[in-house]
Formats: sequence, structure tokens, C-alpha cells
Amino acid sequence: MIILPHSKFVLAGDSVTDMGRTQPIGQGLFNPHGTGYPNVIQGLLTSVYPDFFINVVNMGYSGNTSRDLLNRLERDILSLKPDYLSVMIGANDVWRQFDTPQIPENSVLPEEYRENLIKIVRLSKTVTSNIILMTPVYWESSLTDAMSARMREYGQIVREVSAQEKVLFCDVQSRVDRVLKHCNANYITWDRVHPNIPGANVIAHALLDTLEFDWKREC
Amino acid sequence: MIILPHSKFVLAGDSVTDMGRTQPIGQGLFNPHGTGYPNVIQGLLTSVYPDFFINVVNMGYSGNTSRDLLNRLERDILSLKPDYLSVMIGANDVWRQFDTPQIPENSVLPEEYRENLIKIVRLSKTVTSNIILMTPVYWESSLTDAMSARMREYGQIVREVSAQEKVLFCDVQSRVDRVLKHCNANYITWDRVHPNIPGANVIAHALLDTLEFDWKREC
Amino acid sequence: MIILPHSKFVLAGDSVTDMGRTQPIGQGLFNPHGTGYPNVIQGLLTSVYPDFFINVVNMGYSGNTSRDLLNRLERDILSLKPDYLSVMIGANDVWRQFDTPQIPENSVLPEEYRENLIKIVRLSKTVTSNIILMTPVYWESSLTDAMSARMREYGQIVREVSAQEKVLFCDVQSRVDRVLKHCNANYITWDRVHPNIPGANVIAHALLDTLEFDWKREC
Amino acid sequence: MIILPHSKFVLAGDSVTDMGRTQPIGQGLFNPHGTGYPNVIQGLLTSVYPDFFINVVNMGYSGNTSRDLLNRLERDILSLKPDYLSVMIGANDVWRQFDTPQIPENSVLPEEYRENLIKIVRLSKTVTSNIILMTPVYWESSLTDAMSARMREYGQIVREVSAQEKVLFCDVQSRVDRVLKHCNANYITWDRVHPNIPGANVIAHALLDTLEFDWKREC
Amino acid sequence: MIILPHSKFVLAGDSVTDMGRTQPIGQGLFNPHGTGYPNVIQGLLTSVYPDFFINVVNMGYSGNTSRDLLNRLERDILSLKPDYLSVMIGANDVWRQFDTPQIPENSVLPEEYRENLIKIVRLSKTVTSNIILMTPVYWESSLTDAMSARMREYGQIVREVSAQEKVLFCDVQSRVDRVLKHCNANYITWDRVHPNIPGANVIAHALLDTLEFDWKREC
Amino acid sequence: MIILPHSKFVLAGDSVTDMGRTQPIGQGLFNPHGTGYPNVIQGLLTSVYPDFFINVVNMGYSGNTSRDLLNRLERDILSLKPDYLSVMIGANDVWRQFDTPQIPENSVLPEEYRENLIKIVRLSKTVTSNIILMTPVYWESSLTDAMSARMREYGQIVREVSAQEKVLFCDVQSRVDRVLKHCNANYITWDRVHPNIPGANVIAHALLDTLEFDWKREC
Amino acid sequence: MIILPHSKFVLAGDSVTDMGRTQPIGQGLFNPHGTGYPNVIQGLLTSVYPDFFINVVNMGYSGNTSRDLLNRLERDILSLKPDYLSVMIGANDVWRQFDTPQIPENSVLPEEYRENLIKIVRLSKTVTSNIILMTPVYWESSLTDAMSARMREYGQIVREVSAQEKVLFCDVQSRVDRVLKHCNANYITWDRVHPNIPGANVIAHALLDTLEFDWKREC
Amino acid sequence: MIILPHSKFVLAGDSVTDMGRTQPIGQGLFNPHGTGYPNVIQGLLTSVYPDFFINVVNMGYSGNTSRDLLNRLERDILSLKPDYLSVMIGANDVWRQFDTPQIPENSVLPEEYRENLIKIVRLSKTVTSNIILMTPVYWESSLTDAMSARMREYGQIVREVSAQEKVLFCDVQSRVDRVLKHCNANYITWDRVHPNIPGANVIAHALLDTLEFDWKREC
Repeated sequence: MIILPHSKFVLAGDSVTDMGRTQPIGQGLFNPHGTGYPNVIQGLLTSVYPDFFINVVNMGYSGNTSRDLLNRLERDILSLKPDYLSVMIGANDVWRQFDTPQIPENSVLPEEYRENLIKIVRLSKTVTSNIILMTPVYWESSLTDAMSARMREYGQIVREVSAQEKVLFCDVQSRVDRVLKHCNANYITWDRVHPNIPGANVIAHALLDTLEFDWKREC
Repeated sequence: MIILPHSKFVLAGDSVTDMGRTQPIGQGLFNPHGTGYPNVIQGLLTSVYPDFFINVVNMGYSGNTSRDLLNRLERDILSLKPDYLSVMIGANDVWRQFDTPQIPENSVLPEEYRENLIKIVRLSKTVTSNIILMTPVYWESSLTDAMSARMREYGQIVREVSAQEKVLFCDVQSRVDRVLKHCNANYITWDRVHPNIPGANVIAHALLDTLEFDWKREC
Repeated sequence: MIILPHSKFVLAGDSVTDMGRTQPIGQGLFNPHGTGYPNVIQGLLTSVYPDFFINVVNMGYSGNTSRDLLNRLERDILSLKPDYLSVMIGANDVWRQFDTPQIPENSVLPEEYRENLIKIVRLSKTVTSNIILMTPVYWESSLTDAMSARMREYGQIVREVSAQEKVLFCDVQSRVDRVLKHCNANYITWDRVHPNIPGANVIAHALLDTLEFDWKREC
Repeated sequence: MIILPHSKFVLAGDSVTDMGRTQPIGQGLFNPHGTGYPNVIQGLLTSVYPDFFINVVNMGYSGNTSRDLLNRLERDILSLKPDYLSVMIGANDVWRQFDTPQIPENSVLPEEYRENLIKIVRLSKTVTSNIILMTPVYWESSLTDAMSARMREYGQIVREVSAQEKVLFCDVQSRVDRVLKHCNANYITWDRVHPNIPGANVIAHALLDTLEFDWKREC
Repeated sequence: MIILPHSKFVLAGDSVTDMGRTQPIGQGLFNPHGTGYPNVIQGLLTSVYPDFFINVVNMGYSGNTSRDLLNRLERDILSLKPDYLSVMIGANDVWRQFDTPQIPENSVLPEEYRENLIKIVRLSKTVTSNIILMTPVYWESSLTDAMSARMREYGQIVREVSAQEKVLFCDVQSRVDRVLKHCNANYITWDRVHPNIPGANVIAHALLDTLEFDWKREC
Repeated sequence: MIILPHSKFVLAGDSVTDMGRTQPIGQGLFNPHGTGYPNVIQGLLTSVYPDFFINVVNMGYSGNTSRDLLNRLERDILSLKPDYLSVMIGANDVWRQFDTPQIPENSVLPEEYRENLIKIVRLSKTVTSNIILMTPVYWESSLTDAMSARMREYGQIVREVSAQEKVLFCDVQSRVDRVLKHCNANYITWDRVHPNIPGANVIAHALLDTLEFDWKREC
Repeated sequence: MIILPHSKFVLAGDSVTDMGRTQPIGQGLFNPHGTGYPNVIQGLLTSVYPDFFINVVNMGYSGNTSRDLLNRLERDILSLKPDYLSVMIGANDVWRQFDTPQIPENSVLPEEYRENLIKIVRLSKTVTSNIILMTPVYWESSLTDAMSARMREYGQIVREVSAQEKVLFCDVQSRVDRVLKHCNANYITWDRVHPNIPGANVIAHALLDTLEFDWKREC
Repeated sequence: MIILPHSKFVLAGDSVTDMGRTQPIGQGLFNPHGTGYPNVIQGLLTSVYPDFFINVVNMGYSGNTSRDLLNRLERDILSLKPDYLSVMIGANDVWRQFDTPQIPENSVLPEEYRENLIKIVRLSKTVTSNIILMTPVYWESSLTDAMSARMREYGQIVREVSAQEKVLFCDVQSRVDRVLKHCNANYITWDRVHPNIPGANVIAHALLDTLEFDWKREC
């Protein structure tokens, strides 16, 4: 696995990351990681690598767009001095274009999204070089769905920024699409954005594979 | 308008009808009609026909399938002796096939749905001949979406039963589709089943048109 | 209709407007418009004009007099940069003269009311020329009732200021009186100030008529 | 004063009597009499007659009509074996005719009201001969107001039944009208039915005068 | 009665005055006067003098000693510009000497109490000359009880300061003692400090007599 | 100490015993003994005799008189098969005579109290011979106080019944009086019935002395 | 994997299984599986086998001993007609011997535990032959700890009953011990019985290995 | 006893001291000392020495390490001007090394612990010379348990600092070990840190013995 023992792994994002995590910092005792993919990450990292003592810190914040995340990056994320940093952002940048089109200032268009992402990566590099960019996800495989198509456009931007900035890329959307071949989206999520526990596992497994997690490790 | 002064109009259904109505009977003081289409119906009937004193009674019950509604029809609906009765049921019959396919006993398949509808109509006729069957609705216009296609299949059964049993038919789905030509489904509903206030208006207007409501009435 | 697509329509007022709207701004997701006439406005504007994407913003504030509204106008209302602005204020200016006469500083007398209204209009004109002044309403048609007579006196001031300042005038009181010819005030409101849902429709329809809303629009 | 030491005085009625009294019996420790006129009665009887130890029992029940009171008379009121019994009922018999005319079974018309009152008195006489009938009250002095006129019609029935059945009569409405000559109804009550503390005093003073309470008693 | 129409009457004190009054100012709508003697005062002043429109303001504050009241006098009491001001303070000055003798800084000894009272009166005179000093009360008539004897010592100081400063004096304790000749203290209060509703009437009547209230006034 | 290892010790009584114990049985995990003297008993028995594993069971019930305790004795107390049983009852038998004299059926007079106690003892003897009767307590040493004198009259009955029925007698009142020589009653209790923690220790120590508890035991 | 598509898998147990699952049946929508190992099982089964639609049902019940489970087996577990049934019981049978030794009827001794297990297995076989017995677990590896030694004694009984009754055996304790070689018990659990999320993963992985779950399955 | 009449005794510590005490200062009325050993101390000091009027002040703060206590010493503890000061700190310094080893900044290592203790003592000496240092406690007697061994290492530091700084030393751990010879740790505490009421007595008795408390004092 890429992550070294006794390191700090911070997961930044929106409500898909947050999912009820402890405020102000999603670490510590009393199940602080919420009920989303960070909880699965923490559960697996600690149970399979009990000798690694990795500090998984959930810093998702419900409702965040890339613009919001950029604004709080210094204060909320980088001040924690992560050794590893994952970023899964963009769902709200897209969603607001569809659920509240009458309030255009609430959403973030592709050009700004790309700029925000680049700024997030470059600022983060001052603290760590271990950065993973994850695609935002829409639990809908049809490309004729307007919001589905739009989310993939943003996922493509994540891919391009990852390559350009030379950071790890995690294609969560394609993992999700693989699952949706077998079951209906309603089996995982009612709003196609916030998944249930199995859906959180799907996202977590995508991230763990990027981290070269060893599922069958003996310890 | 079809509805006569001083009559009782009962609206039966599932959570799309219920929407937080007063228990056990959705009538009376203190805004008892919840926040869905019955609330719009009541608001418009009373404000435009203030001399009619129509008793609008919301008897939606969250989670109901056609099987559940049939089971409680005598006790909950017919015992109220409605002069007019609308029935909008079937969303959960379909939804459970997609969100909890691992629990097949929770959903209702087309054949049983048709039978349940027919029984509902025939039992209701012992109390009133003024019956309106409304299609269940999925706020998704793509026919390639499996659940969307399935919901229309159930809507078609409503149409056929209405014709066969000679009761009024209200095609809510086609009204919804007309709206979705202009805006994204997320603008109205996040889960494509429970609409917001504008969506409740869309359903209500469909029903009011069936009732030959006079929008420009002078009084 | 007067209102153009993609515009912002702010509704200022007191508790008759507020009715439990979302704080600090009555816009966005999750039914933010409370249960009064703004909710009806939003429901009808969006369901009948789904292609217009009008941002209806409820900025009513419970307990406000015209003095309070003037004090928060800049900060709460004009800072939102409305394209259209409706103002329905004055009920508390009058009511406090009758329910707490022992605290005279809580009410606003006619002369000050007129001045407040004029200031509100003139300040608002720096942001938009699309202003609608609505009469405050008392759900009592008897002119021998002291508070009813007083409220009409304030309604007359609204009419005069509208004419003088050349802004749209919405005579809600006369619409209300038309309804009260057919039903008792207790059918709509217990305190003759806060109406139930049908009463909210009456106010909303008065405002929509002023806006030349097309009830039978095909889209 | 009419009431003898160490006796039990039960006050029956609707929400105007109830006003948050302790359930199931409005007697005992911890201020059990609610915030209406029974609380004033209890406060004055005990402070001015501290040597009388009168057990004041509030048995008002919110929402009751004369029909409801008759139904629970045996179980709730007479089973307590009152030495004195006051009855103030009828406001809801009237109110429901005006606030929910669409549900006629919720109100009580004059003929039934008279019969209910007579039955209440005759049943009560099997337990005590000390019965006081109080008029229901509407805090509106205009006789051109339909509900005001209707309430006085019911008050007249109370007067007639009292005379016919030879029990004490307490004309609360005329006491209220005397106060309304000096101040607006909104100073006492927003809905013209439920008074504030001063209004509770007005009702209590009317009842105490009927009981020949000695305000200036030395003890 | 001493109090003139349209005047403001502020009642300062501790928890015996406060009794759950509205914060920050005990005036206005929605029964703001708590459940102690100010509520009785307000009820009687308004019901018997409905044409006087006296603004009764409860400014009691639970736990206050004379030291605390002096500290907040300017900010909380005098800033309200009372036309009439009653002060009932001292119960906590005494009580803390008996219930928490291990924390001597929480109580106020006689000499400081006298000084505090004098300062309160003199400061208040800059705003109004209509001041009533009321004795603090202990619902225990035995003089062999140490706290009872101590409270009377403080009551004597109130009497002396009233005479010296030429303000009205209200001897609540002697009124209380008159009642305790007829009934046990537990009938009125469990802790001998906070009375129930009848006890609140006893205090209120003492104050109303000082104000030359006319119980039998015709209006 | 009298109590043997591995035995069950049930404490019956009223609110002085109850003090918020776990329902329906005051034993087990999670500090089930409330905040009164049973909690002190349990704390000391287990900390000083950690090898005895005595099951202390608090079966006090707030508001109980001896009549109430007798009524629930079989069902609540004896069904637990206590090895040791203490009974501290009577405070409410007396108190109700003073705080609600207007409801005489709520209190228990001396003759009935004696009979209730005898019945309680004799019924209990069918289950255990280890019975301790404790005096009810009033935290007031003056015998000129009517309720204080009355409570001692009941304490004397406890003493007589204990002697007559040959069960252990615990004179809590004299222990309390010894403390009140040194400090004011308000230091321990505001209502002279429910003591604070130190007062709970005073009662507990009286009971432990009766049980020949060894404070300085070495283990 | 042993489990077939479209089957029902019921997990019976105590609070380690329950962990806040939905009542009365831990299945369905809205994350019904609590926060313990059933949640991990459900997350992994559905995310890795999305085409299997296995109905995972959490029927743990906090506080249960083997005696309690046996008592409710028919009604709560077998009535659900499981295709697969896992049983993890015994922690409370042991714990009560150590935390409440003064209440011996609350715990279950080894001989009864064995009998209860055998009865549970044999009754279950009438419904399914796919039964997995899991050892109860104490998160303490020292055998000199009395409760740790006792829990292993019960684990050995589970092993023996599994062999004798020819059902699957899952040795959770040895999996736990493997983890405790690497980290302190406090890292996983404060009371050594209820693990946090990583500890829930450890239990789940033990069970999944028994079920021959394929971690690297491609779908 | 060492403590003199009318003095103030402040108990500083972590959650073992805090146990729900009143904020911001654990003194005064309404049982302010929480449910831990300070409550026992207060109960015994006041019941056995009712003439001493000692002000017991609980200033424990949940979660505190010695580092946290040092940081708030001036503001929270010394500002109260204690006559006697006990300090029981260190449990969290140790615990965090075992329950959240992945967050090393949350724990305090032995060298810093010693320095913190010395600073706490020396700063406190500027206010009082009556200082008692108490060992932190782990309710586990096995020395092979890593956290148990570590806690004793910290206890040894307390002993050394006490001797070096010439303040009173209270060896709570050895008192605890004496109890654990007779009963299992689960009988007193589930997490081996927070004891139940009997465990609170064990700690309190250790402290009272250090203070030369006279259990059999006559007063």
C-alpha cells in the first residue's frame, strides 16, 4: 500500500464525504467519520493494517462546491498538515445548475471548476505531494441524462488536471458505472448523489485500489 | 366545475398525497392538508369558490402500495362517505422493485396492481360514483430509464381500468412530461417521486382540469 | 406576464409574508418560502412558467412595521438586488395600536407610515423600477370595526403613495372583501390578520393579477 | 359568599376554562389550574378566604362542545362529586359553524344546544343543587357581526335554561361588553375567543360576583 | 388609584417577582408577566381599569440580591423610564446566609443591604418620584426560626429606608402573616420563599392596597 | 454487620427513597439507585464490603403514602423476595394534611397510618424476618411548628410498631435533629422534606448504624 | 461464495450485532443495519456482489443472553424464514457474571449455555440447514484475565456444538486475537465488548471468510 | 481532620473528577458536584462535619490531560483562591496513547507529565500550601496489561513529585488494587477508567484518609 505507517490521511470533499462526520475535525474517538466512504476507508485501513495507526481525517463539508473548498482549504485542510490528501469535489458545482437554475451564483461552471481544482492542487502541494483527485459521481449511467453528461464533463476535467499536475487520479465514476450495469440506481441512492452504505463501499474500494490496498494482507 | 357545493372530496394515495397531512384525518383547522397537491387543491377550491364550502380530505398514507390502500379502503376512506374520491396510487408498487429488489414481498407486480385497482374502484362505487383515477408519476421523461418505463406501464393500467370501469381518468404523467420538456427533473424533485411545491401545483392543476375547475371564475 | 425570465422577485413584508420562511434568505431548496402567499406565488410561477426560472425570494420578517422594514431595507432587501420587488407592510403598524395600546412606541401612526413607505419606494428605486405596493389587509369587512377602518386608512395611503411615486398598486384588501361577501372571516383566519392556505391564495391571486399572470398559459 | 368552607368547586367548560390545566384532574399542587379564569378564581378564593380551604377543580377540556361535555359529564365531572359546579360551554358549538362550515357534524345547532344544556343540568342535579350556568362569550360587541350575534343567541338560551331549571345564571357576555366599551377586543384577545390574563379576570369577576364574593373581606 | 392612565409601572425584584416572565423585558403580548404577583397586578389593573392602558413591566430577575439589582438598575430598570417603580428585594440577601453559608460572598449583610436600598432609591429618583419599597417575605410566622427573624430584620430596614427617603412603603410581610394565622405555610409554598398563585395574590393585594386600588370600581 | 454476603436488601419508601431511581426496579448497572440515601448505602456497602456482593434494590416510589405502599407491597416489594427490607414511609401521609388540606382524601391520619404499618410488617414477615422500620423525617427541629410536631407523632408510631412487632427500629429523625443543632435546615433542604446529598448521607448513616456497619473495616 | 443470489441472510445476536439497527426488523431502506459488523457485511455483499440482491437482516437485540435468544427465536428469527442464519451470542451470558455478580439470575452458566446453543441450532434446522455459529468475543488477549478466560471457555463450547451439530463454525475470537497482537484493545473498544468501526470490520471479515467471500471478485 | 472550618477545598482533575458537575464552577445549590468522588467527599464532609461549612468545589474537566490542566490552572483553579487543593490528573495523558495512538499530539509522555505536575504544584503554592497530589487510576490490577503498567508509571511520578515538592500524596491506585483483590473490575467500571458510585467511594475514602477524616466523629 502506498500509505506509510503513522501518517495522516485527510479526505476533503462535500456531503458525499461528510455524511455526518464529527465537527470541527472528523477524527478521534466515538466513530467520528460519518456514514460515507471515509468510514469504510477508516474501517478497512485499521482492521487490515492494525499495526499502521493511520490517522484518517474526514474533512468533507456538506454543500461545498469547488469554490467553497478552495476558500476554506488553507484554514480547514492544509492547517492539519496532511501526509496524504484526497479531494472529491464537484457534485454541487454541477447539481446547482439543475436543481436551482434560478440562482446561478450558487453553481460553478466548468472553466472555474478547472481553475479551482488547479489552485487546490497547487496550494496543497506546499504541504504534501501525496494528492489524489477523485471524480465527482452521479449514480446514473445514461449519457442522455443532462446532469449525468454534465457530471462526466467535470470528471474529465479531474482526469486532465490530475495528469497535468501529476497527482494520483481515482476514477470513481467508472467504478460506479460498473456497478450500475448490475443493479438499478435506486438500489444505491434515491437522489443519485448520496449513496447508501453499499454505495459508500463502492467509492471506498475505488479509492483503496488507487492506494494499492492489499485486501488479503496477512498480519 | 364538476364538484357541487357542500360536498366532501377525499383524496386517497401514498406519500405524494400525504406529505405530512394531519392524522388520522386530513381535514379541519390548522392547515391539515400537508404540503403536497391536496394543499394546492384545497387552497384553490376555497379561494376561488369561497361560497362552495367543499370539505377537502387528504387521506394519503406514506409508503402505501395499491395492496395497502385496498386493505385500508373500507376503514379509512369509504367510512368517511366521500361525495368525490380521487385515487393516486402505484408509485411504491413500482419503486420497491428498484430500491429494495432483495425484498420482493414489498412490491406489487402489474397483474396484482390491475386487480387491486379494480377492487378499489368497485368497492368505492358502493359509496360514490364520482371517482377519479390518477396515474402514478415518475419525474423522469426518458423511456430508456427502467423505472420510468415501468411507471408508465402502471399508468397505462390506470387508463385501462378507468375506461373499463367508466370512471374519470386523470393523466398526471403526461402533464409532468410537458413540464419536463422545459426544465430538469432536479428542479422539481431530488428523488423523482416527491415533488416540491411547484411540482405539487403541476399535479393539482392536472386534477383540477379533470374536475373542470374555472380558473377565471368571478364571485 | 410582466416578470421576465431569469429574474429575481423579492417579496418584502411582515409575518403575513414570512409565515415560517427559511432564514436568513427565503430562497433555494427544501421549500423555503413558508406557508403564506409567497409559497403560492412560487408554486404557480414555476409550475405555469417552468421555462422562466424566476427566483422568488421571501424576505418577510415577522412582527415588522414599516419602520422596521425601512431600517433593514438596505441590508436585507436591496442588497439582494431584486429585479422585482413587492412590499406588503402596515398590518403591525395598525395592530399594535389596538392590541398593546399601553406601549405606544411599538406602533406607527399614519403620517410616519406614509413617510416610511415613500422612503422605502425611493430607496428601492435605486435598485429596481419594478416595484409593487400591496395594501395591508384586515380580514374584516365591517367598517364600523375600529381596526378595520384604520387598516383601510393605511390601505388608502398605499394607494396614494403608489400613484404619487408611479409604482404598481395591488389592492389586496378589496380582493379580500370580495371573498368575505361569501364566507365568514373565521373560515380563513382566527385573528383576522394571518390567513390559512386558501387566504394565502387570495392574496397571491391579487398579486398575480397585478403581474398579469396568465392562468391558462400553454407551455 | 355562597360557597361554604371545605367544599369542592368544579368548573366545567371548553378551552376557555382549560387553558393548560393539569390532566386528568385540574387540582392539587404545582399550579394545576392553567392560565384562564379558574386560575384567577383559585387565586382569589384562597388568598381572600385562606380559612375556607375550598378545592377548586378545573375540568375544562379544549375543543369541547356541549355535546362533548354531555358525553363526558358522568365520567369526568359528576364522578368527582362536586359541591358546586359551574358550566361555561357553547363557544365551540358556535365557532365551528363559522371556521369549518364544510364539516357540519363538528358544530352544534341551537336546538341541540338547549337540549344538551338541560340534560347537563338535570344530570348534575343528582349530585349537587349548586349549579351556575355561564354564558359562552365572544369578545366582539358588534351585533352586525354574524358570529357575535350567534353567540348571544346561545347566551340567551343559557339564560332561559337557567331560569327554567332554577339554577344560578352568570351573564359573562354582558360583563365582557362593558369592558369592550373602553378598549378594543385586540387588547384582550386575538381570536375573540381566548382572552389573555386580564380577560380571564373579567370572566372570573363575573363568576365571583354571582357567588357573592366579598372583595374587601377582613380575615 | 394613585396610578394615572397611560403610565408605565415597572416592578423590580428577584425570582418572587420574575416567576418566568418574558426576557429581556416583561411586557407586551403573549402573557409576558410570569406566574407571580406581577401577573395578578397586570390582570387586575387591566380588567378593572380597562380604560387606563397602564403598561405593567415585570423586571424581576431570578437569584438577584440587592447588590445585583443595584448593579443592573441603570441598564435594566431606569433605562425603561418608569412612571412608577416598585422594588421587592432582599430574599436572596438573607437566604444565601442559610442555604450556602459556605459561600459567604453570595449573601448580603444588613449594613450593605441598607446601603444598596438607599442607592437604589436615590438613583431611581432621577427618573421618577413614584417609588414603592416592598418588604421581602418569608412564609414563616415563627420568630424563633432564625431565617424568619433575619428576614424581618431586613423588612425593618425597608421600612426605615422608605421613611427616610420619603417613598411609599408596602409591608408585604405583615399581610403574609395575617394569612398564615389561618393556614399552614405549606399550603402556599414548599420552600417558604416562592408562593403559589394564591400567595402571589396575597402579595399583589398588599401592593394594590398601597396603590389605593379600587376593587369595586364601576366602569 | 448484620447483612450477610450475597443477600438482597430492598429499600421501600417514598420520594425521599426514590430520588430518580431506575424504573421499574432500582437495581443493576448504570447507577440505578437515584441520588438519595439508597445511593449512599449502595456506595458504602460495595466499597467497604467489595467481597459481599450485596444486591441493594431501591424500591422507593415518589408520592407514596403508607396507604399506597401497602397497596403495592405484594406486587412491587415482596415479589422481589428480599432478604432484608427497610421501610421509610409517612412523610406524604403528613405533608398532604398541610399542603393540600382542601383534598383530605390525599392524606393518611395517624390511626390508619399505624394500621398500614402493622399490615406492611406482617405481610413482609411472610418473606423475611429482617425488617427495619425507619421514621419519616421533617428537617425542622422546632416542636412549635405544626407539621414538625405532626411528623414526630408519626415517628413515635413507627417506634411503637417496631417494638410491638419486634423488628429493627431506625430513629432517623433524632439523627437529623443532631445535625440541625449545628446548621440551618436550608443548608440541607429547601422544602424540609427532600434533602441534598449531605442530607442523604445523614439518613444513610443512621440506617448503616442500625445495620452495625463497620466504617473502618479492613479488607 | 457460499451464499446464493436472491437469498435472505439473517444475523442473530446481542448488542454487538444490534448496534442501533432498525426495529422491529433490521432490513430495508434508510441504512437499517446499525453500525456494527452486519453493516459491514451488508456493505461488502452488496458492493462486491451487486447482482446477487442478498437480503441481509440484522436481528441482534441488545442485552440478549443465549437464554433470551432462545426465547425469541421462533417469533423473531425463524418466522423470517432465513435461507442463511448466523448466531453470535454469549457475551452477556459471561459479562453479567462479572459486572453484576449480585444478581446471579441475570447471567447464564456454561452448562445452560451449551444447552441453549444446541436448542437454538436444532430449532433453526427446521427452517434452514445453512447455519453459522460464531464465538462471542472479548477484546482482551490475556488469559490471566478472569473474564477473558471465561469468554474463551464459552467460545470452546461454540466450537464443540458446531462440530457436534454439523454447522459452520466461525472463530471470531482468534481473528480478534490476531489483531490484538498489533494494537492495544483500547484502540478498538473501551469496554472490551463493543468494538468501533474497525473492530466491526474484524468481526465481519471473519464471518465473510467463513462464507468464502471473494474480495477480488470482478463483476 | 486536616481541613479547617469555613475553608474552601477545590478538587482539580479530569472526567473522573468532573462526572457531570455544574459549569462553570462546581459549587453551590442543586447538587453541583456531579456523580464522582467529589460528590462523596462533599456528602461526607458536610454530614459528619455539619458545623464546618467547608466549601467543596469540583473543578474537574472532562478530557483534561496534565497539559490542559496546566493551561487552565491560573484562570480556572487558582483564581478561586482555594485553601486546599487536590489534583488527580494523568488518566488521559496515558489513555490517549492507547485509544488514539494515531493522534500522538493528544497524549502526554512521562517526561512532560512530570514537568506539568511540578509546574502545577509550584504555581499552586503561590495560593495555598495545602496541596494533595492523587495518583491517576486504572481499574486493572494486572501488571502485564500495557496500559495498567503505564498508569502505574505515572502514579510513581506523582509519588516522586509529591516527595520532592513536599506536598501530601494520596495513593489511590493502591486503594483500588486492594478492592480488586475481592471483585472483578467490571463490577466497578466498564472502561476501567470511570468508576460507578461504589468506585467513587473507594477514591473518596483514599482521599479522606489522607485528610485524616474522622469517620466516627460525634457532633
